[in-house]
Amino acid sequence: MNKFENVTVVKAANIYFDGKVTSRVVEFDNGDVKTLGIMMPGEYRFGTEKKEIMEILSGQVEILLPGEDLWRKIAGGDTFEVPADSAFDIKVMTVTDYCCSYIG
Amino acid sequence: MNKFENVTVVKAANIYFDGKVTSRVVEFDNGDVKTLGIMMPGEYRFGTEKKEIMEILSGQVEILLPGEDLWRKIAGGDTFEVPADSAFDIKVMTVTDYCCSYIG
Repeated sequence: MNKFENVTVVKAANIYFDGKVTSRVVEFDNGDVKTLGIMMPGEYRFGTEKKEIMEILSGQVEILLPGEDLWRKIAGGDTFEVPADSAFDIKVMTVTDYCCSYIG
Repeated sequence: MNKFENVTVVKAANIYFDGKVTSRVVEFDNGDVKTLGIMMPGEYRFGTEKKEIMEILSGQVEILLPGEDLWRKIAGGDTFEVPADSAFDIKVMTVTDYCCSYIG
């Protein structure tokens, strides 16, 4: 699915880490919410409220998921999940385009 | 208008200048196209094909429009127009969130 159709987009971006991470909210008719975002190279820690499914559209990152000891390499086309009410660390190696789905 | 409703969003971002400028395409039912984008601090030159109306949602930039000698300061809430088939220079002073409308 290359496009999201019949959606609502919040005009203003969410801006984090001095703009090194930015995203825009996309709302679906069925109540689903996703964000489409860009991460510039750097290291970040993100907390979650809902469970998140992160789809890396392009770019290269390494992630450390809650309760894990090993960093995982994730590239464009890959997806990873983060439990609700947790946090994960991410090292962004190259400019990364992502789509985050919030579940539950 | 804080949200664009009943629109189509192209999932993948447009990535320019090593990710320092990124945008996403929003398509409207009537054929209108806009992009929502982020510019990191830096200096850029952009060419236009269609006439563009640039709305700065937040941030601070200075622009040099075609045929002008003086840089104009533009801040969040301001809008400027760029003629079709031209180019303009922009100095982005702070992380800038924008909405670009393509006319004609």
